[in-house]
Amino acid sequence: MSRWAIGIDLGGTAIKAAVVGFQGGIVLERSVPTDTSSGPEGIVSQLSGIVAALYDEVSDGLGADAFAGTGLGAPGAVDPEEGTLSYPPNLPGWTTFPLRKALACVLEGTSPGSSPFFIENDANAAALGEACYGAGRDFRDFLMVTLGTGVGGGIVLDRKLYRGAGGGTAGEIGFMIVDFQGPSVHAGIRGTIEGMIGKERIVDYAWALIAEDPVSGSHLSGLCRHDRAMLSPRHIEQAARQGDPLSLAVWERVGSVLGVGFANVTALMDIRKFVIGGGIAAAGGLIFDPARQQLLRSTLPSMHDGIELVPAELGNRAGMHGAAALCFQ
Amino acid sequence: MSRWAIGIDLGGTAIKAAVVGFQGGIVLERSVPTDTSSGPEGIVSQLSGIVAALYDEVSDGLGADAFAGTGLGAPGAVDPEEGTLSYPPNLPGWTTFPLRKALACVLEGTSPGSSPFFIENDANAAALGEACYGAGRDFRDFLMVTLGTGVGGGIVLDRKLYRGAGGGTAGEIGFMIVDFQGPSVHAGIRGTIEGMIGKERIVDYAWALIAEDPVSGSHLSGLCRHDRAMLSPRHIEQAARQGDPLSLAVWERVGSVLGVGFANVTALMDIRKFVIGGGIAAAGGLIFDPARQQLLRSTLPSMHDGIELVPAELGNRAGMHGAAALCFQ
Repeated sequence: MSRWAIGIDLGGTAIKAAVVGFQGGIVLERSVPTDTSSGPEGIVSQLSGIVAALYDEVSDGLGADAFAGTGLGAPGAVDPEEGTLSYPPNLPGWTTFPLRKALACVLEGTSPGSSPFFIENDANAAALGEACYGAGRDFRDFLMVTLGTGVGGGIVLDRKLYRGAGGGTAGEIGFMIVDFQGPSVHAGIRGTIEGMIGKERIVDYAWALIAEDPVSGSHLSGLCRHDRAMLSPRHIEQAARQGDPLSLAVWERVGSVLGVGFANVTALMDIRKFVIGGGIAAAGGLIFDPARQQLLRSTLPSMHDGIELVPAELGNRAGMHGAAALCFQ
Repeated sequence: MSRWAIGIDLGGTAIKAAVVGFQGGIVLERSVPTDTSSGPEGIVSQLSGIVAALYDEVSDGLGADAFAGTGLGAPGAVDPEEGTLSYPPNLPGWTTFPLRKALACVLEGTSPGSSPFFIENDANAAALGEACYGAGRDFRDFLMVTLGTGVGGGIVLDRKLYRGAGGGTAGEIGFMIVDFQGPSVHAGIRGTIEGMIGKERIVDYAWALIAEDPVSGSHLSGLCRHDRAMLSPRHIEQAARQGDPLSLAVWERVGSVLGVGFANVTALMDIRKFVIGGGIAAAGGLIFDPARQQLLRSTLPSMHDGIELVPAELGNRAGMHGAAALCFQ
């Protein structure tokens, strides 16, 4: 009987959970809108409900004995040893909360409650998911970056999550500074990658280019009816694919900033494989090509052997896969 | 009988070698000018001579049985597994050379030749030296940076050298890019730390400030008799200690750039301890204070716990200590 686990991706908008087999296939999937109104207790109640429901639905068929446990990826600072989650962005009302203990408490006496429970930072979980079942399958060491509202990162070394010297907060490439004298400030820090290529910053940059040169910007501006609030990365992608020079320049910059970040990862850790995921990564070659060129320009030729940039394969299911994989390790 | 080893620091100017005890004391030390005129063969001949001489002088007293081997730190790309040294800067005429094998060959049949021989990148060796016997003694994880002509780095994780995902070239904080749109270019790469705070770049920066504002610059300029070729970091240090605002601004910038680099190390690897060595580090608080402030400004408050910047303790003997320590591991 093959092993299986429940993998959960706790987000600010939705809680996504899946029954994942040891080989990586998703057997069953559920998603509920995150209840952000009642603090940690509300979330714990939602999580226990979804775990119990998934378990009940599949345990007869897959075998209760083969259940490896429940894994959870969560935003914010996670201490995997202590099982705590601290200050998750987008979840108001949290400080440091003993999430694992609380869940174990609520599930005590039930079948899924008697199996192991693991908790990990969501970007780390996504990296582990890609390592086990996705684009990182063939890489011993890589950095995964998730391009979305924020810029998250996770590092896999020797096929295992690298959690860092301290408490599980390594891999934060979004907080890497590449333009320390530049104009952008994010979370109080000047020149970070997230501050330059987080979703809204990409749109801001495009809008600034439009404002600078309304004639060149007219095509892109037309796509959002000349309304900044309506402009999205999708418009910039669409316009770039139509050859719009201004939009191409926006992606060129996104790729360059990312390539500089990758170069720093190569210099510091000698990592040469990069998996790129998240909604913004849908722009594909518009980002990948300038990122690769910038990475090569920004590293010594002696470091170029084996450099690869590949798209993530698991999309928004990477977190669930990785959370489940925590139970198989 | 306590173990001992020979540790060698191969530099472009001098080959320094020492007999080092397991506890870290130096028993005997030798230095010869590096023969850069005859390529790898000349260096191998020098190395074997110095190893044989040191061994002969101490083996009776310390005990031949307690000899743990010979370790070597060398500039450039070292492959510790293969024992090769590639393209060492300041050693003309090298490509990739099997240094360990060549030394073993020359020393074959002699007593030191029958013991293990280790080779490591010089910045890594210095970091290991500080980890075992110096300022990193109490740190499980730290980055060591060496501020000199170049900016070298080595990383110790879990008390062991972190050699990187590839072949031993990790820790190169000098090649980290923090100002990717800035004016400085070094080794073809824009905005690296070494390109901004390598020794000559510090002097260049000071000289540029003098040129910009000769009145403010007159004090520092006077120290080098208004001759750029005579200006050295020592002058800038001396003037800063006398309160010269222009010189203080130079060190403020050196510290800031370094602090940004440290912030990136913290974001990526969650390392929070930094050991600072090399000749330029003699400026002490002039660098340490702005570096610490910049590091705190450039990281999230949740990462501030446990941050420490400390001066290296072993000076230019760190490399020999670390090279010897390779034999004790």
